[in-house]
Amino acid sequence: MAGMQRALRAAKRALQAGEVPVGAALWLPDGRWFVGRNRVRARRDPTAHAEMEAIRKAARALGNERLAGAVLFVSVEPCCMCAGAIALARIARLVYGAPEPKTGAVESRFALFASAQIHRPAITAGILEDEARALMRAFFEARR
Amino acid sequence: MAGMQRALRAAKRALQAGEVPVGAALWLPDGRWFVGRNRVRARRDPTAHAEMEAIRKAARALGNERLAGAVLFVSVEPCCMCAGAIALARIARLVYGAPEPKTGAVESRFALFASAQIHRPAITAGILEDEARALMRAFFEARR
Repeated sequence: MAGMQRALRAAKRALQAGEVPVGAALWLPDGRWFVGRNRVRARRDPTAHAEMEAIRKAARALGNERLAGAVLFVSVEPCCMCAGAIALARIARLVYGAPEPKTGAVESRFALFASAQIHRPAITAGILEDEARALMRAFFEARR
Repeated sequence: MAGMQRALRAAKRALQAGEVPVGAALWLPDGRWFVGRNRVRARRDPTAHAEMEAIRKAARALGNERLAGAVLFVSVEPCCMCAGAIALARIARLVYGAPEPKTGAVESRFALFASAQIHRPAITAGILEDEARALMRAFFEARR
């Protein structure tokens, strides 16, 4: 199963749990996968974003806070916090689906990785974007 | 004990543990304090910064991912990840000691809170700056 499909499956589980539907899947060069989903409400934790969960799981499993060669798939453009964590973890490649116009820190509101002062992953955007966007729309329309 | 002194005490413990010496202390309006220190190496967790630990502890104790009225004291200027978490947690006031020229996201390398798109705490910098800087210098000189 491709990485973005894993991330979208996690995003769907977040939606079912009443969370903003964002999912992440992290691939390590040894072949292992680590999946995370947004759990901010369930955990009462403002830092419990999908990317953070996947990064923390992978670092714990690897026994190293730097994830050399890792590829992170996220259904939606990461926020400032998650983009910062991606840099700290030395993620090699970031692949995401839909841009996040209000909080996106890669291209939409901030361009954190445009700075030479921060580790910059290779970036691919727009993968399965429609599916990611449909999940976000379903969540926000249900709340109105 | 004042907030920055709590943060500096936590930073000293981080130094003793061989971590980059950054400490944080979070005050909630109900009078409770939550302390965090950098534990990146011990936990093998790139997200285990002092501010993150203090914010996560406080949100768990409060049962709310938004920390209305909270004041966060940090010995060193927060990075992108932590500044993002500060915004997500709706911290009311951020007080920090020394600027961090390489990674600081408040004034030094990025000015995240200058954006109208993100929750912006009131900010006070330079409190007990010399003490915070001395800890950082001790850590990096010992590594040479």
